[in-house]
Amino acid sequence: MKNAILASTSTLHGQQYLSYLLPEIAKLFKGCSEIIFIPFARPGGITHEEYTSLAKKALQSISINVKGLHEFEDKEQALKEAQGLFTGGGNTFLLVDKLHRNNLMMPLREQILKGTPYLGSSAGTNIGGLTMQTTNDMPIIYPPSFKTLGIVPFNINPHYLDPDLHSKHKGETRETRIKEFHTLNTQPVVGLREGSWLEIKDNDITLRGTLSARIFTVGKEPIELASNTKLTSII
Amino acid sequence: MKNAILASTSTLHGQQYLSYLLPEIAKLFKGCSEIIFIPFARPGGITHEEYTSLAKKALQSISINVKGLHEFEDKEQALKEAQGLFTGGGNTFLLVDKLHRNNLMMPLREQILKGTPYLGSSAGTNIGGLTMQTTNDMPIIYPPSFKTLGIVPFNINPHYLDPDLHSKHKGETRETRIKEFHTLNTQPVVGLREGSWLEIKDNDITLRGTLSARIFTVGKEPIELASNTKLTSII
Repeated sequence: MKNAILASTSTLHGQQYLSYLLPEIAKLFKGCSEIIFIPFARPGGITHEEYTSLAKKALQSISINVKGLHEFEDKEQALKEAQGLFTGGGNTFLLVDKLHRNNLMMPLREQILKGTPYLGSSAGTNIGGLTMQTTNDMPIIYPPSFKTLGIVPFNINPHYLDPDLHSKHKGETRETRIKEFHTLNTQPVVGLREGSWLEIKDNDITLRGTLSARIFTVGKEPIELASNTKLTSII
Repeated sequence: MKNAILASTSTLHGQQYLSYLLPEIAKLFKGCSEIIFIPFARPGGITHEEYTSLAKKALQSISINVKGLHEFEDKEQALKEAQGLFTGGGNTFLLVDKLHRNNLMMPLREQILKGTPYLGSSAGTNIGGLTMQTTNDMPIIYPPSFKTLGIVPFNINPHYLDPDLHSKHKGETRETRIKEFHTLNTQPVVGLREGSWLEIKDNDITLRGTLSARIFTVGKEPIELASNTKLTSII
């Protein structure tokens, strides 16, 4: 009963917030007059109110009202009653900390498994995986656990970035980091490039957008998965 | 009684491991015939043995023998008896996890405060700060705490990278990440560019290398600190 979009990024270069994804969002939230936005990742430290306004403005054009989860006294109940759910990007450590400390991770998971349409972007996509351990973010807060929603049976690396072959910088490439993850963890990792998203319908997971995704599996060479292909190889 | 070098990176583009820093390392470890290498950060998942061999080979040219901390049954005692200490780079989460789980973080700190010469590079430099929370690494393991050595009264961001003004990538810049850190944490952050290092002599901390460092302080615009300048403004 799952119905979700997990997008690598909310915004493409030179575009407005969510604009490239609006046709898909309209389909995902078809029939919803209002959805709940989870603003806890607070990019750049903006307030929950400011961040919710941004989402509200973006979804106005497809006639969907947005309320922030922070506005509700009983947040678990709010999740249960939501017509649709959207978790925005920002800092994944902060998002995961806030969800765990408010005991909202499992209730959120349950609603998604029951079929409430879910949209994630960036950090909101990262938490769709088994753990947040393939995030690119800085550990600005110490969360009670790195476990996340697990609505897909692998980990996700949003904003996946190919190595810059001309770079003289000695910091690790994204691929090196994911390989380090695989020295200690066994789940596959999907490197989602900006402009790509995973479309989840019940048990089908399909890569959408124009780009391929890079799939990392323990003990194997990474492979490129073409757009509009199901992720059957790793699920 | 502190005597330490905290280097942004072990290796510069096109050079051998540690080669740019060897003259400084020779001065730091003057009088030491053997030092202990802490290989726990295991870059790319290499073994403790492989990583220690790399350090051993690099320090051979300045006639210093290297033993890996993993070789010792009583690691705390080994730290106490060491003539010099060197923590290599790799994954900071892994390094911090291993140090805390083996109850070695505080003993290591004590030895450095007592004056045992200490060299850190990358992750080994990051742990010189108050917490590891300005690392660039992926959280591939969940450490018991983010607290680190605190031999300098601020946090360090190694491999500091200036924003690429031509990039179309929407992942956060390093500066944005550090500003997010400052929405929740108050300690200053020193962004150390590759090729820079902090020289610590007792209570003096001096920026060395050819580049400036970027200093982030809560509520202020970041400033550039020139090379060969003391970090008096933030300590």
